[in-house]
Amino acid sequence: MATDLDLAAQPRPGDLRARMRGVVESDWFTRAILGVILLNALLLGLDADVRGHADFGALISVFDSLVTGVFVLELGLKLFVFREKFFRSGWNFFDLAVVLISLVPDAGAFLVLRALRVFRVFRVFSVLPALRRVIDALLKAIPGMGAILAVLIVLFYVMAVMATTLFSSDTRAPMQEMFGSVSASAFTLFQIMTLDGWSSEVVRVVMSRHPWAWAFFIPFIVITSFAVLNLFIAVIVQSLQEEHEEHLKAVAAEEAAERAALEGPSETVPLDPDQERGALLAHVQALRAEMAQLSQALRESSLARR
Amino acid sequence: MATDLDLAAQPRPGDLRARMRGVVESDWFTRAILGVILLNALLLGLDADVRGHADFGALISVFDSLVTGVFVLELGLKLFVFREKFFRSGWNFFDLAVVLISLVPDAGAFLVLRALRVFRVFRVFSVLPALRRVIDALLKAIPGMGAILAVLIVLFYVMAVMATTLFSSDTRAPMQEMFGSVSASAFTLFQIMTLDGWSSEVVRVVMSRHPWAWAFFIPFIVITSFAVLNLFIAVIVQSLQEEHEEHLKAVAAEEAAERAALEGPSETVPLDPDQERGALLAHVQALRAEMAQLSQALRESSLARR
Amino acid sequence: MATDLDLAAQPRPGDLRARMRGVVESDWFTRAILGVILLNALLLGLDADVRGHADFGALISVFDSLVTGVFVLELGLKLFVFREKFFRSGWNFFDLAVVLISLVPDAGAFLVLRALRVFRVFRVFSVLPALRRVIDALLKAIPGMGAILAVLIVLFYVMAVMATTLFSSDTRAPMQEMFGSVSASAFTLFQIMTLDGWSSEVVRVVMSRHPWAWAFFIPFIVITSFAVLNLFIAVIVQSLQEEHEEHLKAVAAEEAAERAALEGPSETVPLDPDQERGALLAHVQALRAEMAQLSQALRESSLARR
Amino acid sequence: MATDLDLAAQPRPGDLRARMRGVVESDWFTRAILGVILLNALLLGLDADVRGHADFGALISVFDSLVTGVFVLELGLKLFVFREKFFRSGWNFFDLAVVLISLVPDAGAFLVLRALRVFRVFRVFSVLPALRRVIDALLKAIPGMGAILAVLIVLFYVMAVMATTLFSSDTRAPMQEMFGSVSASAFTLFQIMTLDGWSSEVVRVVMSRHPWAWAFFIPFIVITSFAVLNLFIAVIVQSLQEEHEEHLKAVAAEEAAERAALEGPSETVPLDPDQERGALLAHVQALRAEMAQLSQALRESSLARR
Repeated sequence: MATDLDLAAQPRPGDLRARMRGVVESDWFTRAILGVILLNALLLGLDADVRGHADFGALISVFDSLVTGVFVLELGLKLFVFREKFFRSGWNFFDLAVVLISLVPDAGAFLVLRALRVFRVFRVFSVLPALRRVIDALLKAIPGMGAILAVLIVLFYVMAVMATTLFSSDTRAPMQEMFGSVSASAFTLFQIMTLDGWSSEVVRVVMSRHPWAWAFFIPFIVITSFAVLNLFIAVIVQSLQEEHEEHLKAVAAEEAAERAALEGPSETVPLDPDQERGALLAHVQALRAEMAQLSQALRESSLARR
Repeated sequence: MATDLDLAAQPRPGDLRARMRGVVESDWFTRAILGVILLNALLLGLDADVRGHADFGALISVFDSLVTGVFVLELGLKLFVFREKFFRSGWNFFDLAVVLISLVPDAGAFLVLRALRVFRVFRVFSVLPALRRVIDALLKAIPGMGAILAVLIVLFYVMAVMATTLFSSDTRAPMQEMFGSVSASAFTLFQIMTLDGWSSEVVRVVMSRHPWAWAFFIPFIVITSFAVLNLFIAVIVQSLQEEHEEHLKAVAAEEAAERAALEGPSETVPLDPDQERGALLAHVQALRAEMAQLSQALRESSLARR
Repeated sequence: MATDLDLAAQPRPGDLRARMRGVVESDWFTRAILGVILLNALLLGLDADVRGHADFGALISVFDSLVTGVFVLELGLKLFVFREKFFRSGWNFFDLAVVLISLVPDAGAFLVLRALRVFRVFRVFSVLPALRRVIDALLKAIPGMGAILAVLIVLFYVMAVMATTLFSSDTRAPMQEMFGSVSASAFTLFQIMTLDGWSSEVVRVVMSRHPWAWAFFIPFIVITSFAVLNLFIAVIVQSLQEEHEEHLKAVAAEEAAERAALEGPSETVPLDPDQERGALLAHVQALRAEMAQLSQALRESSLARR
Repeated sequence: MATDLDLAAQPRPGDLRARMRGVVESDWFTRAILGVILLNALLLGLDADVRGHADFGALISVFDSLVTGVFVLELGLKLFVFREKFFRSGWNFFDLAVVLISLVPDAGAFLVLRALRVFRVFRVFSVLPALRRVIDALLKAIPGMGAILAVLIVLFYVMAVMATTLFSSDTRAPMQEMFGSVSASAFTLFQIMTLDGWSSEVVRVVMSRHPWAWAFFIPFIVITSFAVLNLFIAVIVQSLQEEHEEHLKAVAAEEAAERAALEGPSETVPLDPDQERGALLAHVQALRAEMAQLSQALRESSLARR
């Protein structure tokens, strides 16, 4: 009886794993970890502000090691408790990656690694379910945008190569900076797509040498704006559809419950509303057929009696 | 009989409270207050424009005291009439706060308090129901954005700390102004999120020292744009759902009325369309069952007769 | 019989009005007017480009008088044909206003009146039904935005007065230009709302003197963006609803036609789908009641026979 | 029997066309062409970056001729296989145009033609069905925007002519550059519509001479923003409608299949849900009529028996 569920509540003495599971899944444990993350966030902010104050820096360094220790302990506990199940959640991978980055020795030169330690603060996403759902929803929207994103990337690449071919022969400083290589052109085109300073900083400058340049840039602005709009519409439509489907599922479940209450054990599996309407029509058509047979039978029996 | 409703229309002589209630709730009283607010708005505007003309300033000062007096009287009346019910409406708190700010002595130094007096003009929102509804709708949309806003705030904090860590060691003036502290970095990141001058004023400047800086800023732009888009979609979907639910309620009410008209007192409570369709299917299935029994009975009776 | 319809097709000789009506409503007349408008548009464009070439200017001036003559003739004809009905369409008022502006003597000083002549080109909207529908749709969307627009205007006024009170004492040139008067402040706030150069050109400049100024401007940006978003959502929701209602009307009409075809003259007026579903449920419930009575009657007659 | 379908699988020896068709439609052929396109894209990018390195340039030139050869061969094959059917697809025209551009001799002066060769990379759209669908969807959305686009173009033209008339007499350099001709004004107005630098770069500059200029530009900003918003709403509404219609079609198909399964060969053609609900109501009304007749008949027969 104790092995009915793999890991559920076995308060046998000595079973460390089950007890640890209780700890790891308890509210106070989650809240404690959240507190450590937030305190750490605060101190990382202070550290960035007061860079240079040696005394304070040393204190922060000690606290930082402490936090890293807590995180290593926490993940170790979870690994011990959940074993191979630990790796089924992408969020656990995220936590692991964040902690591993913290363990890289903080050589003075590795400013980027030092900066990456701030990623720890993102652990609030993995700890708070409400935020985790938002991130999951954002990630889920990406595949639906795949094809339009691919079109945009191809468009960017082609336009960047064309801009480089057309404008890199111009040796003036701003032209070289903006269109000197394919990657510089791609950056400039991204700037134009965001409409930031596209006119005075880029297109008017180019047009002072190549007066026809508007014929290159204005279609680019119109097309990318339109493509990005369609990207957004795809996300909106998908989002509305999901809402609608969840609504339909909820309705179907409710109706199934209602039917069960109305007529006892139902003969049919729960239908979605559209199937149900089809079934309704089929029932009514069958009813008419039966009605016709009944009328026919009655008429015959009447005739027989007469 | 007079105490049937707490405060409704008791024209007993001497009952000051009931008579005052009549005044406070009358159209002319509301219109008079609205007139005072608009006149006050006009004069506050003039005051801001002609700062310095002493004569005019004195006149405005007198009028200002008058308006404050009117508002104090109005709120006093409402407090007297509605008593503890006064505090049930957030809009009354808003009116009270606005008037209390006006009562703070206008010492020359308190420029901010002086400026806050203009908040009185916002009282048009509490006086005009159409505008009050707009504000209520805007406020109602905020909770639905809570989780995404939290994600955005965490993202901003992490990126601001990272930007400060990475770029504050650069001692050039624009770098210090843009990324010298966590709050300066947060301001600069907000500027980048609004896409205002992100390229020439910020990212190109940073890239002149740190050529890889685009890898920090461009993902930030893409992610925050996407998150803000999803914020907007959440509001749109919520708004469409509310519209839809109001529509369903209206339809259900209409159908209930119609059924009542068609077949006298209905046996069922008004159903929403989806429940109703389920009920319809159940009725038709029951009908077929009854039809089958009827046919069976008829066949048996026919056989019996033969 | 000839006076059955007020103005319809009376080919009596001498009836000038009816014949003119035929002319005014003919396709070739509309196309000729459209041609005149487009040719005039082209020449007004050329005129703006070649200002100074005296010869060409004289030619354009002659053509301009010709076009004005054609328009006066056209409107005179329409007035003669439609009489008081002419003033029932807002588009006719628009045409009249455009032509009256052209008749004002073109004194050299009245550059603005000269510029207003270009408004004639907008007559393509009144001539082409497809474009007229777009304009009508845009105008129809405005009332639905009324309350939110009013809230935005109040917000702008209050913030403009506050900004003037707070910042106009600063005598530096950019501060005076940006916040020197309530109207200057309103213009600057409009610029900030469009997010154009809000950071480097406005807020960073103000913050160099008043470091807390971000607390004034960033909430303003967030609130106006949110209000404008809700303005747009209101338009989208309204637009989707209209689409939906038109769809429902089309469906109801179609179903009414179908029912008429299925069962001859229908007893019921066309229902909308929701009413129809209610009616269906009522029918089926009545059917079950009748079925129950029938069964009861059969059982009784069976019993009677036994 | 072999000529039953025009081109389908005739493995007769010597039938080159059928065998070639197999090749052209095979997966490996498509993948090989895709590989050539992507490799070509990479080399065109490198070529744009390393302009000047003569050795590398020669290599690229050779490869370029090779790629052109492959494309000519591919299109020749397709023309041979599909003959006149080749010209039924717009995408084939696109491929043909792209290849023909590559065949124009690359004289040093024709920088633009050289740049146009990069359009070859767009062939990934014609090769990958997922991307082709995105482009088809974007193109399909254009007609729905036609009327609003026409209104915007008329508005732009009128405002550009007016701006030129009003501001081109100002001989200062920025005014001449911005409003010196109708085309310059149109470009400047496009810049204002995108809100890029509209305030400091354009409107404040104009207002320093013509203080009333805000009355020209701010309505333009508001109206074009509103028109562009409605353009987007038109696309969103259309997109949602198409989703809805596809959904209805899928539902109707499913229901038809279900009905066919429920009651054998159906008497009715598949209905869309709204027609179906109408049909359901008609069936139930007919059922009540039949029920009434049946009751009447039963009552009469009962009476007859008594």
